[in-house]
Amino acid sequence: MPVLPPKPEPIAPPSGFRVGAASAGVKDPAERGRRDDIMLLVADVPVVAAGVFTQNEVRAACVAQSEAILKHDPAGVRALVANSGNANCLSGKEEEDWTRRMREAAAQALGLGPEQVLAASTGVIGEPFPIARVAAAIPEAAASLGHSPAHWQRAAEAIRTTDTHAKWACEERENFRIMGIAKGSGMIHPRMATMLAFVATDLALPQAMLARLLRRAVAESFHTISVDGDTSTNDCVIAFAHAAKAPPSRKTLQAFARALQAVCMRLARQIVLDGEGASRCMEIAITGARTKRQARKVAEAIATSPLVKTALAGADPNWGRILAAAGKAQAGIARARLSLWMEDVRVVEGGVRAAGYREEQGAEIFARPFFRVRLDLGLGRATAKMLTTDLSYDYVRINAEYRT
Amino acid sequence: MPVLPPKPEPIAPPSGFRVGAASAGVKDPAERGRRDDIMLLVADVPVVAAGVFTQNEVRAACVAQSEAILKHDPAGVRALVANSGNANCLSGKEEEDWTRRMREAAAQALGLGPEQVLAASTGVIGEPFPIARVAAAIPEAAASLGHSPAHWQRAAEAIRTTDTHAKWACEERENFRIMGIAKGSGMIHPRMATMLAFVATDLALPQAMLARLLRRAVAESFHTISVDGDTSTNDCVIAFAHAAKAPPSRKTLQAFARALQAVCMRLARQIVLDGEGASRCMEIAITGARTKRQARKVAEAIATSPLVKTALAGADPNWGRILAAAGKAQAGIARARLSLWMEDVRVVEGGVRAAGYREEQGAEIFARPFFRVRLDLGLGRATAKMLTTDLSYDYVRINAEYRT
Repeated sequence: MPVLPPKPEPIAPPSGFRVGAASAGVKDPAERGRRDDIMLLVADVPVVAAGVFTQNEVRAACVAQSEAILKHDPAGVRALVANSGNANCLSGKEEEDWTRRMREAAAQALGLGPEQVLAASTGVIGEPFPIARVAAAIPEAAASLGHSPAHWQRAAEAIRTTDTHAKWACEERENFRIMGIAKGSGMIHPRMATMLAFVATDLALPQAMLARLLRRAVAESFHTISVDGDTSTNDCVIAFAHAAKAPPSRKTLQAFARALQAVCMRLARQIVLDGEGASRCMEIAITGARTKRQARKVAEAIATSPLVKTALAGADPNWGRILAAAGKAQAGIARARLSLWMEDVRVVEGGVRAAGYREEQGAEIFARPFFRVRLDLGLGRATAKMLTTDLSYDYVRINAEYRT
Repeated sequence: MPVLPPKPEPIAPPSGFRVGAASAGVKDPAERGRRDDIMLLVADVPVVAAGVFTQNEVRAACVAQSEAILKHDPAGVRALVANSGNANCLSGKEEEDWTRRMREAAAQALGLGPEQVLAASTGVIGEPFPIARVAAAIPEAAASLGHSPAHWQRAAEAIRTTDTHAKWACEERENFRIMGIAKGSGMIHPRMATMLAFVATDLALPQAMLARLLRRAVAESFHTISVDGDTSTNDCVIAFAHAAKAPPSRKTLQAFARALQAVCMRLARQIVLDGEGASRCMEIAITGARTKRQARKVAEAIATSPLVKTALAGADPNWGRILAAAGKAQAGIARARLSLWMEDVRVVEGGVRAAGYREEQGAEIFARPFFRVRLDLGLGRATAKMLTTDLSYDYVRINAEYRT
């Protein structure tokens, strides 16, 4: 059960893109025709593309090939083909070839060259990829292409694996729209590759600018959520924008940067709040850090600590664990300068328990489904935020017993 | 329940040391006289001391003071006072003072100066330290001093917190004995500081040599176990040896280095196998690494991955998670060079599933209470090993619900 029901997001697709879906029965041939698991995105106008890919050194073929295409000719890209149900990772010697054939099938159906098509896969790791079923369904996805909200919604459904709901977010301004879809609920599923996100905008941008803004938006959104600290072999965020030689006005660009970040952040929140086994969500704010890097390091150590996350599961306001996790980060903090707040309640002052703090105050806050803690390092002005969920019985159940 | 019952270890205390214990009711005054929670170790001959302390930046006063003493005059040290039941960490403004007074009480009872006494505390974090009860019990511990196996056993009992059994290990050679006691069962207990280990030998050594050998032994023992990847505010390993100006023969020294590491490793294994909530233990061997550092980084990423540890809980031979965790380490591995074995079964070859591997083989191995996996990086000749336990329902229960 997700922590919070997803807020209904309006859908306002950008012009110049069509999406389609089909059911290949990727995971199970018996499901062919019953549940979409292939999606296509195609641009009808000249576009540029950019991507951010997993830093994991064990990466799927789709990550390697999409990254290579974007490095070589990002302005030539016109389409994206994605599937759920099988990550095509560690699947065998044919892995590279299977991804190439998936891209070729999409290129043929769309009248493009294979080097114009990016690929993304999500699902089980280590199983043979059913390329014949995938290739057979791609023309059906091409035949279903359209630009309506319903088409985008169907595309978002097609990339779901164990998500409890499809995820999308949009922003609309006077002179552009941004549409994003994503899948992921933390890498909490056996052999499941975590998250994919695809973003399209009808703002015309030079490619280098799109790439830079995407990197920045991802750093402040998808990289600030942590369900279990594990990264996957298939993670990617891919963005498309209408192509432009010259940048838009500074004002438009700033508005776009903010809107892009908002879309990414809303998708990221949907992912973390959909973490299966999650019953509680804590926002960790680090303030008073010397550098952004220091703030992030401390925030991440807290967000990924099993001791903090089990305390969260037990609604136990265990501030000792939060400080111990911060100290573990080896980020150069000074205990005597630490202050900690749970919401507005001061818990630690100068590295020791605050005089006025009473355990009941913390207990009341930790019982909430969503709350904030703030750790001030007392060293500078840099800040960072992360969202984390609890490490619950259900997390263990899902991960330990999924295949039984 | 521990994974394996502890093997009975013989006790052969080294000459020149006496230990004692007493019951202060540190955690609960009602337990005064019922369960030992104070221990003393005192040297009757000139000794040298060395320590290895937690790298956590949030550290207890006892860690700071003991480290300072060892830095300033390690040859002057004659005794150690330790308590369980309260870590005296983040306990309030008086924390430094409380540790100092504990050392002063021990110094007075033993006729020493306070700068000759090291201190160690373990137990709850963030609670006021009952210095009056501790100081009152220390003379009783001094009155109980003795050098028999039973005295050492009682000392080992006195430092237990939630350990299911007391932990000790000894080595005896022609010309020396080494005796070690430890407490810890992974930092899996709310507000509990993880591990303490105290080692004494009657081999006469220069201090610098003891310090160097201890660092090396700790690196290959306590630093290779992982229950949850968290480090604590109070961890320390302290060693005493008879004092010598000149080193022993090279042969004796080599024998001592091996024996010291054996003692530390046996204590470390007792700790990891006593992890509450642990039902299964996996040894991770990394081979074929370019450097020791690279091997350690990969081993640690696997040992601390929640996805690997939940797979272990479910007896699921999920090799995709092992490789994904290795890739997460950012240690410069190359997927195409990876090979993985579960015991003698080859699972991955050249970065993909090995042709002959059958899931039933892995399932049989993962059902065992103890087994080995080996990941060869195919890059060089360096190796590293780590022990890890599963992340089970009981781990969550103990950590989430301890205070309910």
